[in-house]
Amino acid sequence: MVGLLYVLSGPSGVGKNTVLTEILTKRKDLTYSISATTRLPRGQEVDGVDYYFFTKEQFLAEIENDGFLEWAEIYGHYYGTPKQTVLSRINSGQHVILDVDIQGATQIRKNYPNSILIFLYPPSVQELQRRLLQRNTDDQESINKRLSYIDKELAAVSLYDYVVLNDSLEQACYRVESIINAEEVKVARGYWKKLIYP
Amino acid sequence: MVGLLYVLSGPSGVGKNTVLTEILTKRKDLTYSISATTRLPRGQEVDGVDYYFFTKEQFLAEIENDGFLEWAEIYGHYYGTPKQTVLSRINSGQHVILDVDIQGATQIRKNYPNSILIFLYPPSVQELQRRLLQRNTDDQESINKRLSYIDKELAAVSLYDYVVLNDSLEQACYRVESIINAEEVKVARGYWKKLIYP
Repeated sequence: MVGLLYVLSGPSGVGKNTVLTEILTKRKDLTYSISATTRLPRGQEVDGVDYYFFTKEQFLAEIENDGFLEWAEIYGHYYGTPKQTVLSRINSGQHVILDVDIQGATQIRKNYPNSILIFLYPPSVQELQRRLLQRNTDDQESINKRLSYIDKELAAVSLYDYVVLNDSLEQACYRVESIINAEEVKVARGYWKKLIYP
Repeated sequence: MVGLLYVLSGPSGVGKNTVLTEILTKRKDLTYSISATTRLPRGQEVDGVDYYFFTKEQFLAEIENDGFLEWAEIYGHYYGTPKQTVLSRINSGQHVILDVDIQGATQIRKNYPNSILIFLYPPSVQELQRRLLQRNTDDQESINKRLSYIDKELAAVSLYDYVVLNDSLEQACYRVESIINAEEVKVARGYWKKLIYP
């Protein structure tokens, strides 16, 4: 029985990482698949833990090799999800969760139609700006650039299966967990047989 | 924003009532819609609380009047869901949950395609028999009749959206709650807008 592929997206600063960390702590049956990127490590980020840090040349070679489930160029950097890692886990019955942006989620839906797309929604644009400033990893210009895209980003909800408001970490995690629990027992997915006849 | 219509089915003795009672206690935003029936009250059952007890004549007149969202004749008795009660609640934004059998769920899906069908699954046929005997409301002949249908009933899972194993009341309730939580934030249903822009 194949595992399920969950995708979590949302605008920068919405709290994806915090929600993901919490969910992964609670649900040991869920595994996180690290993205590859050409951007430089931020703060304490470690290669092979937070991201696979690639050079641009390595990344382009991997695209040629059809090695990504999705990839995108954002703000001048490449990001991608290594295909083989994800598919081998799913095929062995594990659930995988990915943290990708809207372009990435769209490609994943296309390349893996059974994926479950979840959009994390900010309580307000003001709150998003506050969180981005507090994170202190982006300069004002980057923040302004991100915020100028916000209406377009929020409109992308329609591409997703689920939308979860992140006004409280606890509530958002509970809702994402509910989605995971519900999708596991959706008849059309067949995964329920694994739960009923283990 | 219209509310959601949840339907809970499952073989006799699977524990539908216990799960329903628990869910309704936890989720005050969910309302239970009482069925109408021509069968006689059992034990402490009260008209207008457990069921609307109809005479056969009243029931047949209401069928003629297109007054049921679903109705069926089972073991010589009529059961039905009063249409107006359910639709007026949903249209006012409330969620409704119904406890109907497989025939009923099939009719509800047809008459209200947006309904969410949940099948409660027994841990085993032996356990089902044990629960039916313990319930002490049916004679041995009725129980045998019910159990002779069990394979056909379990095959009906394929008509449902979700299947929930009832091996532990706590786990089953948690799973049903998860389904409710997930469906509320499903983008295609539109109900999420009520949660994000209340």
